[in-house]
Parts: sequence; structure tokens; C-alpha cells
Amino acid sequence: MVTPKVTFGAVFAGLKPHMAALDDFLRLQVEAFEPEIRSMADYCIDTSGKRIRPALVFLSGWSDGDVPAGEIVKAAAVVELVHLATLVHDDIMDGADLRRNRATAARKFGPTAAVLLGDALFSHALHLAAQFPTTEVCHMVSESTRKVCAGEIVQTMRRGSMHVTREDYWRIIDLKTAELFRVSCFLGARLSGAAPAYVSDVARFGRHLGIAYQIYDDLADFFGDEQRIGKTLGTDFASGKSTLPLQILMERLPESDRLALVEEICGRQPGQMRLRMEQMAEYEVFASVAASVHDEIAQAERALHPWPEEAPTALLSQLCEVLRTQVGALNSAGG
Amino acid sequence: MVTPKVTFGAVFAGLKPHMAALDDFLRLQVEAFEPEIRSMADYCIDTSGKRIRPALVFLSGWSDGDVPAGEIVKAAAVVELVHLATLVHDDIMDGADLRRNRATAARKFGPTAAVLLGDALFSHALHLAAQFPTTEVCHMVSESTRKVCAGEIVQTMRRGSMHVTREDYWRIIDLKTAELFRVSCFLGARLSGAAPAYVSDVARFGRHLGIAYQIYDDLADFFGDEQRIGKTLGTDFASGKSTLPLQILMERLPESDRLALVEEICGRQPGQMRLRMEQMAEYEVFASVAASVHDEIAQAERALHPWPEEAPTALLSQLCEVLRTQVGALNSAGG
Repeated sequence: MVTPKVTFGAVFAGLKPHMAALDDFLRLQVEAFEPEIRSMADYCIDTSGKRIRPALVFLSGWSDGDVPAGEIVKAAAVVELVHLATLVHDDIMDGADLRRNRATAARKFGPTAAVLLGDALFSHALHLAAQFPTTEVCHMVSESTRKVCAGEIVQTMRRGSMHVTREDYWRIIDLKTAELFRVSCFLGARLSGAAPAYVSDVARFGRHLGIAYQIYDDLADFFGDEQRIGKTLGTDFASGKSTLPLQILMERLPESDRLALVEEICGRQPGQMRLRMEQMAEYEVFASVAASVHDEIAQAERALHPWPEEAPTALLSQLCEVLRTQVGALNSAGG
Repeated sequence: MVTPKVTFGAVFAGLKPHMAALDDFLRLQVEAFEPEIRSMADYCIDTSGKRIRPALVFLSGWSDGDVPAGEIVKAAAVVELVHLATLVHDDIMDGADLRRNRATAARKFGPTAAVLLGDALFSHALHLAAQFPTTEVCHMVSESTRKVCAGEIVQTMRRGSMHVTREDYWRIIDLKTAELFRVSCFLGARLSGAAPAYVSDVARFGRHLGIAYQIYDDLADFFGDEQRIGKTLGTDFASGKSTLPLQILMERLPESDRLALVEEICGRQPGQMRLRMEQMAEYEVFASVAASVHDEIAQAERALHPWPEEAPTALLSQLCEVLRTQVGALNSAGG
């Protein structure tokens, strides 16, 4: 099934000058690294990603569409560098060889160098955060980074376990994904001088959008188009991650099937992806997971209800629309 | 050979209240981590280490021996947490099972969780750094952390290579060790309100002491007492790290022996530790390496020459004396 190529980037053509400013800024950052590791840092500061977090900074700090202020670009760079650092470390742990169709840092430089390179990227993100007039950005970003790591640790510890509750799942994605979305929105609004009440609501928007985005991503791992999402389907299942689609399937399967699925999640039996996909279709898992995405999107939108006149509101609402479209573009028939 | 147990801790009994305050502060930090990872953070925030870096903060910020100001304790905690985070990551990369006679985080929680746990410790160090009134601490510590990582990356990339020059060696230890010593001294002096010229000289002291300390540590890897230093000798050699003792031996060996040693450093032949130790004795490697330690100690002391009246000067000079004693206590006969 050919799905329309709806991406954050395509919808937000208005962000082009912002993203160009971000690219220029990030490229300059390579010079900040010690000469011996510059080419490695350059490799990791990849400009081909979706850049959702920087987009959130720009959109939340939107004023009149002009070229963004230097501080906003710097904040966007900080959140992107934190995200890139987590990807470098994630790829080591997942043993991933490819990301966005090129060798991961772990593959290219070896896992040892990749651990340290991720650390260096984290450090530089915090170094940039320390260049703001007050300690607030450092404060927010360092706390946020710790939460992202905590979320990843919890996820790691629960791998291969069938005792992951809905509550656990929400907690994990709140920490590992929604937290940095939240801070991105917070920083954009805050640095543009918005009123505290608005900053707080935009941050809440970011958090719910982040949860929605992660559930969508977990859904895409079963129902996506491999070519379009650029990775092999079923990797979460194969690695024992009990994401929402699997949790819902588990709840709906008859006892015997459920026990067999538990064996597969625990890694005691090989995962039967085709069978599980057929069962997901049979038990209408897609619709339930999609409903959760839509529910979180609705909560995100509600956070902005009190602010219909603010410039970012319309733009952030468009982001919600993009995500809805992306969910709709998944292959609900499965496989 | 039984060597006298001269430690930084034993000499600086005057630091007891400072170290107690640091312990209390670090223990409290565990609460800052997400509940799910608190016990893991607690395990890593190990209070059994030598705490050289916090000692440097306290000594450089010494005023009248009173209980240290809260800011000094916090700065000591920041540098110690950065150091602990690097240890957590080092132990993953070295595949080390034990550190200070207990399981490493990598061994206890698995390498994946340990990568993330190290990241969380880094993040929390920077979060504490963001609690100072200005961004200076964050600025210094994040840059320093990046340099430490860069040094470790360069070291990793040069492992198993015989093309490591003296200049490379000094550069690596300057980044991976001396940098955090330097920042520890800088922060202690700065936060105690010292004059900028003094702060700069104390920082220079710290840098040379750090270089001296790392050369001593590399020497101890060949000439130490296993029980006293708490690790197996020859681990640098075994892992292909070309440290100063090996570099000097290489320079002095006749051609054929040199080529055989290259094969061992490159890992193409098993390292012949006993033979190499005999050769180190024959070619008087110990004395030359010890001379380099003493030279760096002298440079450290020279940095403090203009400040004989400042309270920290005498204490920091004592540290130099401790290090000289430790070098003397190594078994210069080898093996």
C-alpha cells in the first residue's frame, strides 16, 4: 500500500529558514570539539533527521515568522544534540548497524568510542545550554536528560517481561519521549518571552504530543511501511519490548494464545510476527492503539484551548493534524 | 615488598568534616533520581573511592578549616559525580567485572543499563551545576566533561597502536585526567572568592598535578602492589594501551625486541609481562617515568610560588608530597 508522504518537514515549509539556521549552527558546533574527534562529532551531528524537537522549539517560540532569534536556534540545537546523543547510545545498546540508511556511530567507530562520543555530544549540549544568560536552560535540559535516561533504563529493565502494565508503558514513554518534547515546547515559549501561564500550557501540549508521537511510533513498528519509516518492522516485538499494540493483543487473546505470546516476548520462543499481525487484525488492535494516539492528541490540543490568539497555537495544532494524518496513513489491515 | 599505606585520605585528616559533608550531600542526591532507578543510582554513588577531585575542590577553596560552605560541597559533588559517571562507562568498555572489590555497574545491571545510568549520573552532575547563581559552573563542567570524553576517545582509537608519540600520550592524559583536576581546583578557588590571578594559578597547579597523577597511575600498573592498588597489574599492557613506561621501554629496546613488543601491544602476540618487566628493570624505565612524575609535580608547585601566603598553598603542596611518597613506595625493582 502506497501511503502519502506526509511529514513534519513537508507541512512546515515555513520552518525552512529556521531549519537552515539550525543546520548552520550545528555545523559550526563541530569546531567546538577537540580536533581529534571533530570528524566523529561531525558524523553524529547528522542533519538528515526529522528534527521534531527543534521544530517544537521554533513553533512554540513563533512570533511573526521572521528568521528566529539566535537564542531560539541555540535552544533548538541543545534539544537536538541531546536527542542525537541518546540515539548514539540507543544504537549501541540495540546493536543497530544502520540508522537512516547509513552506518550507526557504534558500527562506524566501534561501541567503545560510541559510548564516549554520545557522552561528548551530551556534554556539548549542556555547554551550549550554559551559554544562556541564566542557569534556567541548563537546569531544564539536564533534568530532562536524566528523565530520558531513566525512561530508557526502565524500558531496558522491563524488556522480555510480560508484567508491563499500561501504567508502566505510559510512564516509560512519558520519560523517554514526552519529556524532551515538553522541554522543547517550554524553551521555545519561554525564550520568546511568553507569559508563564502560556509557557506552562505549551509545555503540557508538548508532553501530550510526545506521548501521542511515541504511541504512533510503536504502532508503526507493526503497521508501518518499511520503506517509508526506514526500518524493519517488528523490531520492538523481536527485542522483547512490550509496547501498547502487544499489550492490547495480549489482553484480547484467549488464554492459550496469550501464554504462547508471553513465551515469545520473553524470548523463550521465536516471535511469530505474521501470526501476531493476523491476530492484531482479528482483534482490532490497530483501532484501539490509534484511539490512544487520538486521545493524547486531543489532550495536547486542549492544553492550547485557552490561547486561541497566540501565534504558535495554530501552528502547533497543525502538528497535531500531521500526526493524525500519519496514523491514518498506517496500514491498518496489517502486514 | 610491603609499602607504607600513604593515601590522600590519611594525610588529609583535616578534610574529614568536608568528606562527611560530601557523603551526606551525595546520599541526598539519590532522591533526585526517578524512583525506578534510585537503587541503581545509589549503588553507583559509591563513597569508597579516593575522592581526589573533591579533595582538590576543598583544598583549593580552603579558608580557615571550618566546615565548608554549601557551594563548595556542591561543587565537590559535581566533579565527583562526573568522575563516577566516567567510571561507570569505562568499566563497560573495559569489560571490567570488579572495581574497588565489588561488582561494576556494568556487571550488576548489564551494559545497556550501565550506559544509561552513566548518562543519568552525568545529567545529574550538570543539574547540580545549574543550581549555582550563574552559569559559570555549568559552563566549566560541561566543557571539562567533553574534554575528558575526547581524551578517552583518543586513547581508545590509539589502543593497540605503536604509533603513540610522547606528545600523544601527554595530550591524552591532559584531556582524560588533568582537565577534571584542573576544573576541581578552579572551582574551589573561584567559589571561595579568590582573586582571578590566583584562581588561574591554582587551576594550573591542578592540571600539572593531574598529569603527574596519571603518569604515576600508569607507572603503578607495572610497578604497583596488586593488593594495595586493588587491581591486576599489567592491565594497560594487556589492553594495548601504550603508556609512558611502555613507550620508554620501546625506545630503549634493541630493534628485534622492539618489534616483538610492537606485536604484543598490537595484540598479535600475547603480552609477555614478566619479560617486559625484566627489561624495564634492565633499561631503568622506572627512574625515567618517575622523573616525569616529579617534573610535573615541580611544575605544579611552581604555579603556586607567587602565592606563599594563601591558605590553600601549603595544603596543596602537601598533596604534591603525598604523590612523591606514593611514587617512592612503588616497587622500583619491578615484579
